[in-house]
Amino acid sequence: MTAAFDLNRWMALQLDAVERALDCWVNVDASADLDHHAPAELMAAMRYAVLDGGKRLRPLLVLAAYEAVSAGQGDGRGAQAALRAACAVELIHAYSLVHDDMPCMDNDVLRRGKPTVHVQFGQASALLAGDALQALAFELLTPEPAVMPDAQQARLCRLLSRAAGCTGMAGGQAIDLASVGLQLTESQLRQMHRLKTGALLQASVMMGATCSQTTALATAALQEFGAAIGLAFQVVDDILDVTADSATLGKTAGKDADCDKPTYVSLMGLDQATAYANELLAQALAALARSGLADVDALQALAVMVVQRSH
Amino acid sequence: MTAAFDLNRWMALQLDAVERALDCWVNVDASADLDHHAPAELMAAMRYAVLDGGKRLRPLLVLAAYEAVSAGQGDGRGAQAALRAACAVELIHAYSLVHDDMPCMDNDVLRRGKPTVHVQFGQASALLAGDALQALAFELLTPEPAVMPDAQQARLCRLLSRAAGCTGMAGGQAIDLASVGLQLTESQLRQMHRLKTGALLQASVMMGATCSQTTALATAALQEFGAAIGLAFQVVDDILDVTADSATLGKTAGKDADCDKPTYVSLMGLDQATAYANELLAQALAALARSGLADVDALQALAVMVVQRSH
Repeated sequence: MTAAFDLNRWMALQLDAVERALDCWVNVDASADLDHHAPAELMAAMRYAVLDGGKRLRPLLVLAAYEAVSAGQGDGRGAQAALRAACAVELIHAYSLVHDDMPCMDNDVLRRGKPTVHVQFGQASALLAGDALQALAFELLTPEPAVMPDAQQARLCRLLSRAAGCTGMAGGQAIDLASVGLQLTESQLRQMHRLKTGALLQASVMMGATCSQTTALATAALQEFGAAIGLAFQVVDDILDVTADSATLGKTAGKDADCDKPTYVSLMGLDQATAYANELLAQALAALARSGLADVDALQALAVMVVQRSH
Repeated sequence: MTAAFDLNRWMALQLDAVERALDCWVNVDASADLDHHAPAELMAAMRYAVLDGGKRLRPLLVLAAYEAVSAGQGDGRGAQAALRAACAVELIHAYSLVHDDMPCMDNDVLRRGKPTVHVQFGQASALLAGDALQALAFELLTPEPAVMPDAQQARLCRLLSRAAGCTGMAGGQAIDLASVGLQLTESQLRQMHRLKTGALLQASVMMGATCSQTTALATAALQEFGAAIGLAFQVVDDILDVTADSATLGKTAGKDADCDKPTYVSLMGLDQATAYANELLAQALAALARSGLADVDALQALAVMVVQRSH
């Protein structure tokens, strides 16, 4: 990382754009060009789930990857596509949290320091809001062709659907569900997390990269980068679940241990889990160094942040 | 309809293709080219939700519309795209039934004569299976570009995401949820059903049409056709809910009235609801006649079937 790069300043700029875009797109008025408006009560639950909370790590990865690949030479259309991709990934993440918190799943009442969606709006509305957020993610990626080239729309939908579905996030959650109380090997635990959290984090990087031209070398390096930080994120999550308190996390701490869920900490202990997170960070940074990309400051800094975060 | 057209024979041919495609695509092995397999337990719930049941009305509409627009001149790629679109729409429909049947929604235990997914697999698996089916719909629409042109992929995702989301099916379900026990006007009831059922039925027609070249005139006529049969379908559903028994329906009859849900029958009485269904059928057939399309036998026959069905 060059000494000159200021992650906080970069993040503030990007987050401002992301928050404004989400506020605009997850909105009754956003559908004013269609015959139908979204019902106000459903939209209220969707907005509650998405706005005013969250680290926005996935959108930041999309935008950082776009910046790396476009090397500051991105045009307005590419930047616009990257912003849509950033918001689409966040909508998938947000819907997964809504459904994950429901009584039939994790039965969590606190999320980002607020009551969870089903506590606030009821279970039926939470279920529908999650479903509608997933659809909205694909709506964001498929505007009229004048806004984004068809090939880009298709590529982004391809990456996102695979990362979200049965061979990605939903698949990982199913493995998670089936493994409560079981003793998993490290390889099984890694496979679960590669799907559950890793697929969408990696897709964030690849979706950002696909909004501009890039080389096969850079694409392969970014795949590796995304896989490493995707896994690192989960290892750190497991560490924080035992070392942080609920107020810092903004969700119920100690939950995984209480539920007898297999974690990296339960598998390898706190010290070794921490060492593993740092090893994954080193892998991610090495992949970036091999990418041939120049403007990787933001990606580097985000990777460091993922491993060194306190919540 | 020409005397020569045999709907049963046409349907048998199309259904054979649809069932085989669904069996192939909703399958652990379908993801063999990816790094990850879908977990077997999740896939079992997804297959249970999709296979071996259902009238497949939406896929049939996709294929009939493709046939009308391609006028028997469709090439292998167009037909393949239409088959993917047909299956994608069915996956969206199937996921909506899984979530709709859950205890926090309609709490239904019987569907297509079988225990509902959450009864068979548990609520958490039903929730995840529904989520994964929605993602899989968009996976089906976004194969590698060699399989389907990018522009077609983008158009199909655009149509499907809007029909499924907050300004379509999910939005209609939210209105439905909010209107239990309320007295709706006919206009409010129509708006609810246009979103809840109509949007996806209309999208089926438009997705089939978009798999081949067509005229603006035909597109507008098919929009009208799709809107009319979409609404007719729901009016007939409301009629059957009070006139048919559970065995014939394959689901719990009398459910809407029991739940004090507004229906066309409760609003206008049985006779007037029946007359309205026939009027919508006439509108649909008139739109087809104006379309300038030659091969509309299947679309015509499906419209008649929608209104005259007994389950």
